[in-house]
This record gives sequence, structure tokens and C-alpha cells, in this order.
Amino acid sequence: MQIDTTEEIASTLVARVRSGDLTVAAVTRAHLDRITRREPEVRAWAYLDPDLAMAQAVQLDETRATGPLHGAPVGIKDVFLTQDMPTRYNSPAYEAAAAPAPDASVVALLRAAGAVILGKTTTVEFASTGRRAETRNPRDLRRSPGGSSSGSAAAVADGHVPLAIGTQTGGSMMRPASFCGVFALKPTWGLVSAEGAKVTSPSLDTVGWFARSVKDLTLVYDVFDSEPAPAAPLDLKGLKIAICRSPAWDAAEAATRQAMQAADERMRRAGVDVAPLDLPRSFSDLAHCHKVIMECECRASFLAESRMHGAALHPSLLAYVDNASRHTRRDLRKAYDLAAEHRARFDALAEGYDAILTPSAVGEAHLGPQEVGTMVLNALWTLLHTPCVNLPGLVGPNNMPIGLTLTAPRFADRRLLATAEAIAPLLAAR
Amino acid sequence: MQIDTTEEIASTLVARVRSGDLTVAAVTRAHLDRITRREPEVRAWAYLDPDLAMAQAVQLDETRATGPLHGAPVGIKDVFLTQDMPTRYNSPAYEAAAAPAPDASVVALLRAAGAVILGKTTTVEFASTGRRAETRNPRDLRRSPGGSSSGSAAAVADGHVPLAIGTQTGGSMMRPASFCGVFALKPTWGLVSAEGAKVTSPSLDTVGWFARSVKDLTLVYDVFDSEPAPAAPLDLKGLKIAICRSPAWDAAEAATRQAMQAADERMRRAGVDVAPLDLPRSFSDLAHCHKVIMECECRASFLAESRMHGAALHPSLLAYVDNASRHTRRDLRKAYDLAAEHRARFDALAEGYDAILTPSAVGEAHLGPQEVGTMVLNALWTLLHTPCVNLPGLVGPNNMPIGLTLTAPRFADRRLLATAEAIAPLLAAR
Repeated sequence: MQIDTTEEIASTLVARVRSGDLTVAAVTRAHLDRITRREPEVRAWAYLDPDLAMAQAVQLDETRATGPLHGAPVGIKDVFLTQDMPTRYNSPAYEAAAAPAPDASVVALLRAAGAVILGKTTTVEFASTGRRAETRNPRDLRRSPGGSSSGSAAAVADGHVPLAIGTQTGGSMMRPASFCGVFALKPTWGLVSAEGAKVTSPSLDTVGWFARSVKDLTLVYDVFDSEPAPAAPLDLKGLKIAICRSPAWDAAEAATRQAMQAADERMRRAGVDVAPLDLPRSFSDLAHCHKVIMECECRASFLAESRMHGAALHPSLLAYVDNASRHTRRDLRKAYDLAAEHRARFDALAEGYDAILTPSAVGEAHLGPQEVGTMVLNALWTLLHTPCVNLPGLVGPNNMPIGLTLTAPRFADRRLLATAEAIAPLLAAR
Repeated sequence: MQIDTTEEIASTLVARVRSGDLTVAAVTRAHLDRITRREPEVRAWAYLDPDLAMAQAVQLDETRATGPLHGAPVGIKDVFLTQDMPTRYNSPAYEAAAAPAPDASVVALLRAAGAVILGKTTTVEFASTGRRAETRNPRDLRRSPGGSSSGSAAAVADGHVPLAIGTQTGGSMMRPASFCGVFALKPTWGLVSAEGAKVTSPSLDTVGWFARSVKDLTLVYDVFDSEPAPAAPLDLKGLKIAICRSPAWDAAEAATRQAMQAADERMRRAGVDVAPLDLPRSFSDLAHCHKVIMECECRASFLAESRMHGAALHPSLLAYVDNASRHTRRDLRKAYDLAAEHRARFDALAEGYDAILTPSAVGEAHLGPQEVGTMVLNALWTLLHTPCVNLPGLVGPNNMPIGLTLTAPRFADRRLLATAEAIAPLLAAR
């Protein structure tokens, strides 16, 4: 019996290609076939040229190279420049033929690692706000996949690709990962170059990726960071995990509260040392800081777009340029300073734990494919620059995924991945 | 008598074009002629296509548009992407035909404002370290123009263009401005989008520009910021200026010390309220912070270049990727936090002054065209994200320019420009 390779994780595919068991062409063809069957319903792709994908695959089969991602098909959020595909940002201003461009840093690194750059995945306009993707949640087509990395999350969840790249400035990776039931890593800010990704808020924009296992998250992480991984898998017994409801807990629906409770119980039963972590009161001010920094930085970032394309930009983007929220530069300075102070404070608070567990979304994916949801539970961690992993597995009352976020001090990405690998099986639905 | 338009500032040229006294074509032709005469000696240009420049000029003459920079020729440091010219970064890896690319944000905004994008100016490799530009100091061809924005500073000093764009991550604008005797503004970090400029250190990289007057610095500033300017010119009497020798004062040569002294005396005689500002001892740690942040961020930024181009990168860039300085991620976290803490501290210390005067360079331009000099006196202000204006006028023992930096709290750019406008005439050589 032939197993469908679109059900396998990238680590397995790469190993099978390396052993000669599969060709890159066969892997790529299987994923393209899956997309052909599913895309009319899921609508995860902004650009896909099967011939171009197959040409990459054939060329990879011809080389003797064995990069760490050799043969793995990857989807790229359509806000990263690609040398061989247009970049359209889901913006009406870029619907006509988009200018060619050099590969974004992350795309160049994936190519150099042997990945097949399969195509571009859908996004909310400029990965910011405005026009939503047409994408639907593959687990329930009446529901949203979340955003702004809508296509990347949906494509990985639905087996179109084992890996996809996204970005997060508010909650654009953790929330769609939660809604679609996939793993995702948002690394520490700055660890992966964002060059060639559309700039919205330079001090918040973070490049990350979606996968269907922690093993695959780590496979991609290894491309970007040469620091050594922990030598052995971590033992659940003795792991110290803090439960942090976060200052936005009031927004969490019953499904998310129950998921946090279930995770707490399952970890305790497995011998994990679980403790509550209540953030000091001043952390409540950070949601506003995030808003000020994001909106003020978008003011500079969208200025050129607004001068070139004017009314082709969504009114919500033009509102940034016009400083519709009337932030002063003094507000911005204060927001920068408060954010920086709390980065250091959070790291100190988190230092004694292997990771901190906190919600990824307020609840199950919303009904209405374009109801992408709120960043209220994610913005804090984006602002704090901490690495975040979304762990799927639990489900809500409608049998839709409820993801939970594991986070850690800045630059503890390696340790966080190892911890996530140990915790993930506990959340697998039973 | 025909006045050579290459001696005029951009504000004058734009006014004369607007009044019908000059065409954009005539302005552009005059500057191209000047370049033809001078370029063999100065070598400020990495790419210049006179036909392309004239085509832009003719098109601007044909439109009725009257953008704020309508008809002003501008040089662009060859690390910004341009849709109609190659971008080569002074890197051997990009000597062959460079891929076309969409305009960098700043280039798009200058175009939309009516500027003639004249050509690309020379740079140190990737605006970082490595291969130096061939450019010579137009005031003394045996000397360096400084770097890394070598061509932009030299081109403005020598009348090739009235305006040029540069970047600063360490001292890459203030130092060449000082060496070449021109004005420059490095705005507050984040105020001008760096999208489409080569990323080296995202939390330090700052886009700025060179000109031959404060008026022109403000002309360009107006393109990027809609906040209102002070209503009237500032009166010297009653201005409060602090003299800050900076923690790196020991590096200052006699020429710079004497220039600081002369500025102090001239300001006092003009009725300026001058006071010393000694930074607390902890500011001395910031030079090391700057080094850690810059080197660690370059590690991520040059990873893709190193995988794609390997040995075509200068060894000093590969050293960043290999983390040759052996910085730990904990060092980086500490550096981020210390830098952020001191941003707030400096703003508080500077709050009572209109501006703070500090050196731009250790002394006159060095002998040897490729001796671009040290960032030791500039790195602090880049790290603190404060706006900086280089004021030329004073000279050293070899009759070479000695520039001085005026800085201010973050986002006090408007006030700083007004203050610089008032102070600049005091430093004009007598």
C-alpha cells in the first residue's frame, strides 16, 4: 500500500528522499495533486505555478546536494519577495504584474537548504489590516483560518505543504495556528532576518513558520541558527512549566479556559512541576504600548505605499499614515521604553521555568471565513520579543482546535523547542 | 552672468524650477556636466546613466506636478534598491547584473516628491565593513571622504548633487559629513522607513541624508514627516545648548577639541546659554553594547549572503556570521536592555536643552583615501536612536573640515533642525 506523502512531516520526507526511497519530484507532485483536489475549497494560495515547482524539484533531484530541507515543499506567505514569483500582498495596488525582486532573506536560505519553494500563500492585506484572504479553515469550511498568515496555516493543516512561512506583528501566526490546529514557531525577535518581508512595524515584525510537528519546527530552526540543541530529549518529570493566564484572560472563552485547565491537569499527571505565574499589574499597560508602537511604525512604513497608490490602499492602512489615533511622538517614546523595561522584567520572571503556557486564541475558529479574530492574547508576547510555539491537540465544543502557546525568555528558542517536544504529546486529543 | 546651478542648494533649485526660471532638464544637465568634469578624480558614483537621469528630467518637465523636491537631483547610496538601476553594495557578489527590484521606500518617496534619482553613490561593502569605496575626499584627493556613505558625502560636497541619501549603523553619515564638510541629518530611528535598504543591524540601521544647508535638510525631512515645524526661526539669545564631550572624548584629536572649544566660545558670544553635560559613568558601557548588538544582528543579516555567495563576501562579514567575537545570546539580551534603559535616561538628561553639541569625528579626514576612520564618537548616538545633525564650518590645521554633531532627545527632530539652522552660521569659517 502506498502511503500518501502529503500526510508525512517534512523530516520524514527529507529522510526518505535522502535514502533514495522517494524523489523530490514525486514528493512535489503528490503535494501539487493534493492542492488540485483541495484548493477550490480551501483557497490557501495566492500564487502557484505547478511547472515552476516541478522544475525546482527536478533540479534538486539532479544535484547531489543534501541540504537539511532537501526536497521539502514550503509555502511562502505572499509578503516575502521571491525572485521567480510575483509578490502581491493581497493588495489591489499589486494585482497587476508585480515587479520582480531578489529573494527575501528567509526564502534564499530555504532555497539554499534544498526546499522546494512551492508557491505563495494568502495573507490579510500587507500582513497588516484591511482586505482579508479568501481562505477557509480546512477543518470546517464555514470558519476562518485566522490571519494574517491565513494561507500558510491552512495549507499546512490541509496537507498542501508540510511547512510554510508566516509573519507575526500582533497575533498573525499563533492565532491561525490555533484555529487550524497546526504547530508554529515565532522565534525571538531578530533571530531570523526579516529582510525582504513587507515591513509593517520593524520593532515587532517577526518571521516564523508552521509545521505539523515540533520536530519539523526544529528542522527549519536549524537552518537559521547554529547554536547547539540540547543533547537529549527532555524528561517530562521535573520540567517546570508556569501557567500564565496573561492580562487579557477576560477575553478567553470557555473553550480556551477549559483547554488551559486540561493542559494543567495532564501535565501534573505526567509529573511536570506546574505553577501559576501572575504577571505584575504593570504588564496590563503593554496592550496599549503594542498598539502605539504598531500604529506609529505603520505610519512610516505605509507612507510610500500611500503616496504611490493612494486610494488603492485599504482605509485602515491610510488611517495609520494619517495618524488617525492621534498618537504623539512622546506617546511612542514612552511605549518603546515601557516595552523594553518589561522585556527585561519578563525574562527575569520566566527564568526559573522551562516554559510558560498561555492561550493562543480566545477560542475556536470563528464562524465566517473572514472573521480572522483578535490579537488580544498574542500581542503581549510579540511586544516582549519572546519565542512562542503553538501546540495543537485540544479541541473545543465544536470539535475545532484550541491551540496553546508555550513561551520562554528571549533567545531561549532551543530550550523552548525541546520543551515543546516533550509537552506536545500530552495535548494530543484522546 | 550665468550662475552655475551646481553651486545652489536644492531649495533654491526647486524654487527656480517652480517659477519657470529653470527647467529640470537644465538643472540635471548642469549636474551631469559637473560630474563629467569631477568624477575621474572624486569617484563618488557606483552607477550613473546620464540618459536615464535626463529621461526623468524631461518627464518631470512635462508634468504639471510640483512636488516639494520637483527637479532636485538626488544621489542614492548603493545599498538601496532602485527599480531602474542595479544595486551592487560594493560587493564582489553583485558585480554581475544585479536583479531588478522594487524601489526602496525612501527612493519611492523621493520620486513621488519630484526628485531626479540621478544615480547610485559608492559605499563600503554592504554599508558595513569590508571593501572600501574608491572615493576620494573632494577637498583633498589624498584624503578619505569617510565611510560607509562615502559617495553620498563626497558627491554633495563636490556639487555633483545638492542632496544624497545615506545610512548610519555606527558612524556612516556623521563621519563622512564631517570629513567632507557638508550638512547631514540622521533622523530619529524609525522615523523614516528603511525598507529596501540593505539590512545590517535592524535596531541600529538609520536612513538619512546629506545637503549643503540646514534648509535643504528640512526640505527633505518634510517629505517624510507631516508634524508641523516651529512657526518662526529660533533666536540665538536664550537657546540652551549643552556641550557633551561624550565618553569617547579621549579619542578626539587636538583639531576636534579646538573645534568644540571654538563653537563653545562663538555660541556664548552670540548669547546662547551654554552648559556642560557630563553623561553618567554607565554611558561608557554603551560602546560595547553597540558592538554586541551590531555584530549579533549582522550574524542574522548576512547569513543568507554567506550561504549564497560564500567566499565572495569579505572575511569581516563572514566573521559576523561565524560569531567570531563569541557573543552569547545572553550578552545580546543584556546589550538590548542596557541600550533601551539609556535611551530613556539620555532623553531625560537632554530634555532641558534645545540641543546637545558633541564631536562628529576624531579630527580631520585621514590621509589615504580608504582610511574611512572610526565610529567611536558616533556609535553612542546611533545606539540611543537620537536625531543628529552634522554642522560643518570649522576647519583643522590642514584646512580640512571639522564637523560637529548637534543631537537631541528622540523624536525632537523638528526642534533640532530649527536649532541647527540658528547655530550653523556661527560655525561658518571666518
